[in-house]
Amino acid sequence: MTVRMDLNISLDGVVAPSNQSSENPMGEDWGKIVNAYSATRTFRERVLHDTTGEGTSGVDDRYAAAYFEAVGAEIMGAGMFGFHSFPDDPDWQGWWGGEPPFRVPVIVLTHREHPPIDFANGTRFEFLAAPPEDALSLAREYAGDGDIRVGGGAEVARAFLAAGLVDRLHVAITPVILGRGTRLWDDLREFERDYAVSSEVAESGVIHVTFTR
Amino acid sequence: MTVRMDLNISLDGVVAPSNQSSENPMGEDWGKIVNAYSATRTFRERVLHDTTGEGTSGVDDRYAAAYFEAVGAEIMGAGMFGFHSFPDDPDWQGWWGGEPPFRVPVIVLTHREHPPIDFANGTRFEFLAAPPEDALSLAREYAGDGDIRVGGGAEVARAFLAAGLVDRLHVAITPVILGRGTRLWDDLREFERDYAVSSEVAESGVIHVTFTR
Repeated sequence: MTVRMDLNISLDGVVAPSNQSSENPMGEDWGKIVNAYSATRTFRERVLHDTTGEGTSGVDDRYAAAYFEAVGAEIMGAGMFGFHSFPDDPDWQGWWGGEPPFRVPVIVLTHREHPPIDFANGTRFEFLAAPPEDALSLAREYAGDGDIRVGGGAEVARAFLAAGLVDRLHVAITPVILGRGTRLWDDLREFERDYAVSSEVAESGVIHVTFTR
Repeated sequence: MTVRMDLNISLDGVVAPSNQSSENPMGEDWGKIVNAYSATRTFRERVLHDTTGEGTSGVDDRYAAAYFEAVGAEIMGAGMFGFHSFPDDPDWQGWWGGEPPFRVPVIVLTHREHPPIDFANGTRFEFLAAPPEDALSLAREYAGDGDIRVGGGAEVARAFLAAGLVDRLHVAITPVILGRGTRLWDDLREFERDYAVSSEVAESGVIHVTFTR
């Protein structure tokens, strides 16, 4: 069983742009680092439910497809689920819509108490206040023979990486300089030491770097 | 005439590791980000005067060879020349040895007054206290039809980049996380805006990213 993580970052290592606003909850910089991923056929089909077959089919799409393959359980932070966007609405079910792309149990790390939410496609959001190790133990029970993906956001990703819990980290680096926001690599000195590293450049210009142990 | 810059950085964007000591003037981290460049046939021949023909001959060497091609004048900081290493020795001629690899006029930016130093192979070090624009004007006179290379170190490189004076920036990114030292990209938000960007991965694992305008 592999604990996997896929992140989109800028060339200066920003994983969470800092200029969010209520009109633009992900921030204007967000688009720059997810453009190529959002343009893939897999993303359009799986996340946007676009069945026209449109979208890119090159290197970026190969990574996008792998993103969802063989995952048995997911872990994400409250922000990625969407809790921060409408904090006063008790019926808000996150921003993933009626067919969340996960289709597996998702552990949402949050201090807010909330009953689980089940979707017909197999996605089940479960809300838990727990340190990374404990969340991972529970995810292992859920995942069966599948892998566990730690989805993000930045704080959750950095906590799992710093704790040495991630077996495969894939970063998709868009060659733009954001200059502001949360940087992925801070405090991860010598992270590469226990990993083999491989890189390739997509048609879009995105640089895919994968750390595997 | 093109103003060019080639830099070696880590995946977290560190261009000048911070743990220098008198025993190890470049710092123990330095080797990590220049390993692949130092291993090239071009570096071994041109900088180390190794005439055995040893060294790598792949993608890294192609960039190393381009590093020296068509350069008519060079600009560098006092640290790259070597002034900081033996500040009390008036006869110290930098750490480039008796055959510096440049073979063209080199403008060393420093507030220290020092007569020019000429070498038989065409290298001439000239010492000047001047802002980037003025150094560039003088380098243009010296370069003739050749390009101008801004060699480094970190402070000089960042000053020229921030002033928008560089036409072609090549960064060789070694996929290691240093977590300390001077970061190249800070305060260079949207640097990519006026450039076309291309990337390729060398056999060594180094990622070469080139910004051209």
